[in-house]
This record gives sequence, C-alpha cells and structure tokens, in this order.
Amino acid sequence: MKETFRIVSEESHNELVAAAYKHRGYTEEEAAYAAKFATYASWHGIRTHNALKALHLDHLFGSGSEGCVPGASIEKLDTRFEASQVWNANRKLGQATAYEALETCIELADKYGVGQVSVDNAFHYLWGGGYVMEAAKRGYIAYTNCTAALAEVVPFGGKYPTLGTNPHSWGFPTADAVGFPIVIDWATSVIAMGRVQQLAREGASLPPNAAVDKDGNITTDPKAAAALIPFGAHKGYGLSLINEIVGGFIGGSLPTVRNRSWELKEEKHTACFYFQVIHPDAMSAGAFAKGRSQKENIKAVLDDILGHGNENCLLPGQIEAGSAARSERNGGLLFSEAEIAAFNELAEECAMPAWDVAGLPVAKD
Amino acid sequence: MKETFRIVSEESHNELVAAAYKHRGYTEEEAAYAAKFATYASWHGIRTHNALKALHLDHLFGSGSEGCVPGASIEKLDTRFEASQVWNANRKLGQATAYEALETCIELADKYGVGQVSVDNAFHYLWGGGYVMEAAKRGYIAYTNCTAALAEVVPFGGKYPTLGTNPHSWGFPTADAVGFPIVIDWATSVIAMGRVQQLAREGASLPPNAAVDKDGNITTDPKAAAALIPFGAHKGYGLSLINEIVGGFIGGSLPTVRNRSWELKEEKHTACFYFQVIHPDAMSAGAFAKGRSQKENIKAVLDDILGHGNENCLLPGQIEAGSAARSERNGGLLFSEAEIAAFNELAEECAMPAWDVAGLPVAKD
Repeated sequence: MKETFRIVSEESHNELVAAAYKHRGYTEEEAAYAAKFATYASWHGIRTHNALKALHLDHLFGSGSEGCVPGASIEKLDTRFEASQVWNANRKLGQATAYEALETCIELADKYGVGQVSVDNAFHYLWGGGYVMEAAKRGYIAYTNCTAALAEVVPFGGKYPTLGTNPHSWGFPTADAVGFPIVIDWATSVIAMGRVQQLAREGASLPPNAAVDKDGNITTDPKAAAALIPFGAHKGYGLSLINEIVGGFIGGSLPTVRNRSWELKEEKHTACFYFQVIHPDAMSAGAFAKGRSQKENIKAVLDDILGHGNENCLLPGQIEAGSAARSERNGGLLFSEAEIAAFNELAEECAMPAWDVAGLPVAKD
Repeated sequence: MKETFRIVSEESHNELVAAAYKHRGYTEEEAAYAAKFATYASWHGIRTHNALKALHLDHLFGSGSEGCVPGASIEKLDTRFEASQVWNANRKLGQATAYEALETCIELADKYGVGQVSVDNAFHYLWGGGYVMEAAKRGYIAYTNCTAALAEVVPFGGKYPTLGTNPHSWGFPTADAVGFPIVIDWATSVIAMGRVQQLAREGASLPPNAAVDKDGNITTDPKAAAALIPFGAHKGYGLSLINEIVGGFIGGSLPTVRNRSWELKEEKHTACFYFQVIHPDAMSAGAFAKGRSQKENIKAVLDDILGHGNENCLLPGQIEAGSAARSERNGGLLFSEAEIAAFNELAEECAMPAWDVAGLPVAKD
C-alpha cells in the first residue's frame, strides 16, 4: 500500500523545529540553522535525517548527553597555511558548524582554487550530502567526511566494531548539465544499524555480507547482528579508514570511545569534520572538444555515460532531485501521518500548538 | 606449487627499462622516470604495473598508438588560483607527468596546506598508489584519480560499458605509526578485464556481480563477459563517476572514445589526471588526548581499530610494505622466470644483452 503524505508548510515546520531546539537551550541562530537544514533534508526526501531524527540524535548523543553544547562558540585556530583553516568547534551544533565551514571553504576556493576546513570537537552534522549539495548548487565542487557517532563497523576480516559508519559526500555543480547537482553520498557500511533494527522488527533477513554476530561470524539474522560490515570488502574498509585517519590527524581520538564513556576524562570522545571546496575554474584546461564550454562538456560526458542502452540508469542525486520536485509541486514539506504524530509530541515537549493532521492537505505524486 | 622468483639488481633492471623506452623514442629523462617508477612498482610487488605491463600498455595505447608522444613538453597554463595549477601534458609519458605533478602539489601544500594539479591530455600513469605512497613516505597526505584508458565498466543498472575502471589512490604518512604508509588504492570495478581474461584461460568462474554479457545480463562465465560492473553497486558507481566528472571539468571528453577512434579528429581521446596533496600540519587542531603528538595519535587510533580481536586484519598498504621488505632482504627486484623471459624479449627488441636466468640468484622468502 502506498504511504500517504501530508503537506506541512515550511513556515510551520521551521517554527516548530526552531522552538524544539531553543527549548533544549540552543541559541536563536543555532535553532535557525537546525530548522534550515531539517527543511533541506525533508524537501529532498531524506527521511533518515529529518528534524525528528536530528532531535532524537541530539537527545541521545548531543545536548542530552555530553556530545553537543548549546551556545558553544567555534574557535578558529592560528595557521600558517593560507588555503586552510582549523577549527575547534567546542561541540557546537553540527549543522551550524558545517554551514559555516562550507562558507569558509567557498571563500578560500574563490582565491586559491581549493580550500579546506578541518574541525575538531565536532558534533554530528547529520546528512553530509545536504551541505555539499548546497555548495554544488552555488557552482562549486564540495567534499566532506566525518567520523560517525559510534564505532559499529568491523574492519575487513575483523570481529569487533572499531570503525564508524563513516560517510563520504561529494557534490558537483551539474545543474546546468543534468538539471540537478550530482551528489554522491553514503556511509561506508553496507547498511545502517537503524536498518538492521527495522529488519529485526519486520522479521526479515539482512542482505549477505552486511553484518556479523557477537563472535564475528557473518550473519543474515538481524536479531543476531552485533556489528556492521563495510561495503565492497577491503575497498569500503579503506574508505572507512580514511575518515578515522583524517580525524586522527585533526584531533579525534580512539573510535571505540567516541560519543561513549565520557567518564574517561583523559580521552577525547568527540567527532571530527573535514570539508573541502574546489572552484571548477581552477581545474579547467579550457580546451574542450568541439569548442564546448566546461558545462557543455560535462553534459556531453554524462550523456555518453547514460547513452548506449544505459538510459534507465540513475545519477547520484537524482532521487533527491525528484523528491525536491515533488515538494515543489505540493508547495511544502511532505510527512507521513506517523511522522506528524512524532512532530506533535515534540510540539507538546516545547509547548507549541500541535498540527491538525486531518486538516493538512494530502500530497499528490 | 610456490612460484620461484629470481633476483634482478635494480641497476640491470633500470638499464634495460630505460633502453626500452629510449628505443621507442623517449628522452633520457622520460626513460629515467619510467625506470624509476617500474622499480618502485616491482619493489612493492605490484606485478600488474611493472615495466613489462607499462611497455605493453605503451605499445597498445601510447607511443605505439596516438596516446603518448615521446619528448612532449608539459604546458603549465595561467591561472588566477594560487593553490592550483592546470597543465596540458600534451600526451607526455604518464610517469614523468605524475612525478612532476606530485612535486608541485607538495610545494603548494607547504604554503597553502592543500594544493592541486589538474592535468589535461594525459597518458596512463599506471599505478596511482605509487605516487601517493612516495608523497606519504615524505610526510604528506596525497590523493590522485584519473580516467582509465578504456570504457569497460557499465553504470549501475546499465548494459553498455561507458565508464573506465577509474581508480582512486590515497596515501597517508603513517610510517611512524605503523611502519609503512597506508595506501588505499583500487579500481572502481569489482575486478580488472585482465583478470577476466586470465579466468577465461584457466576455465574458472567470475565472482558474482563482477561482469555482464553483451546483452547487459550479469554473468559468471568469463568467456561470456563483455563488460565489468562497479564494486559496491551504486556506491562504486558513484566513485567511478567522480573520475569522469573531474575529467570532464578538466578537459576530458566522451569516455567511450577515450584511447579509441582517433580518426574522429574533432573529439578528444586523451585521459585526465587529478592530483592533490595536503600538509598534515594544516589539518591539526593540536589538541590530542593524553598529550599525544599527531603521529602518536594516529598510532593510538590505528591500534584501537586493529585491537579488540581485530589483530589479524590488514591495513591497506601492508601487503606492498611486506613485498618491499622481501625485496630489501633479497637485495633486488624479484621476477618470475616467465617475467625474465619477457624482459629478455624486450632486451632483444632494443639490442641489449639478455639476462642469464640460470645465473640469477633465487629469491628467499
């Protein structure tokens, strides 16, 4: 049966989300960033990182634990490197930190062609794809990685989870070529732990090579799954290691204590972010075949890739672009009735008026 | 049965390799770069990209075709971006181009924290891992990607090969932490076409999800395999797309005509390279747990990942480091007797003395 979605205006959504963040002690500015980002996620159909998930994570690991500090200030450290910045985020809200870091990278890329911001003592920025997508919509190539909240993934051939699900996100300014930015954005585990729990509830099986049991043996039983496996064997393992190594260079500590065991005061428990932006002009040799412009060239390359019988293949970012088009057609954000009920629980938590489910228009396709 | 390797001195090897390159019209300097790189590959046990493979590729797609021009000069284009360079390699030998690009990236990274060199009209640099490994041994974080010679890989869900095997290579300066640089380096297809051909000769089967037949159906029969599949479904597909998009921004053209159909003069048929180096100090927030230095912190992070029952896991680059140690113990490069026979064919081609197989010492473990 097809799920019914109802339309919530961006304004009502942002008002409630901002109120929920302010209720937890976040500043006006932080709450606005959180609302903006939650809108961006829902607009693009990212249900795994909408406002409900963001506030849930904040409760578990953020302001409800010791991972995130409302009202924290970012400290920009001295550096001798002109195209680079290093920040101590002091556990500031991840979304506020990430938006500001991307903005700084863009300024650096405008001058140097490439710019990077490394962030220590960071807290979960939720959906890395959202930040690089925004930079790509503004004409830049953007990349980010972070060390994921918890060590849930075993190294290739290993038994015990010592790696985060460690995502990578790349955004490319391809809107002129294909109508939307190409955004390559995924975790380095085959599936997420949330998906394992969902499959356990549904009595379904895991895909092959996605999880191990407590003894390190591969299992397809979600109830027996104790840890996740990287995608693509040693290749995904390498990609997951990158985030831990980059985090280790920045200032992150042991993956197995991240966002855990805060009582061990001599250890660090925070995550790290890495951001990079490249100006596409800084890569262009300017000699495109048949006198094409750089944008026309990208279109020709992508047309070639998706031609020759490959017309039904999708480009990364295309599903999100389709969701955005649907939000646009319906003139608002689309939520299931279960999600609206969860928003109404949040509304109660921060003494805001509940949404009248029955009064919200049903979304069209 | 264990393969027998014989020890060839670096000097004899380099003399022959350089002579073979000069015989094909390459300059003294180019031949020296080619020999240096071939030694580096063989020293680290990279048999898929040793001198024999390099000269074979040069014959097929390089100086024996129109892909590579001996004696070509790199043209460094004007740019307003201070941490970036863009080069027109004019189809210069890939190894010479890559070494010089990495050197330039290192100079840029020393000043800006991050530096990039984008290269148009490039020819196959063979083993990306070798360049980033050398930069990592010198203390830098290095990355490279390139568009692979031929379109042999179908997009995720597609039928027809329109993507190269498009490799990515990352090197990290971890020698102080674990004894060798971590080098993450692989193609984005499950396996290489050379491996398909080898399995066909041996009458063996392909791994699942590695290849499609001429109708785009997945096959495990190497004789029926017409094209390769990206590793990790949509994730490896995204990683392969990155190289084509980056190449498209630099100046590369349609993947399906790359190193093919040179008679279409209005199209471009050359590959692109992208290089980037980061100075690890430009990422450091300097606040490592327990007063550790950055290097000690990397060691602590890696020890945590490979602890807790994961002691038998390998780090990327470890196998290559083991091969290098074996070369070191044996005091030279190790080649099979079949490889030595192939070197002797090369020697005949360029009127150099053949190696006396029986007189070469047998390598110990």
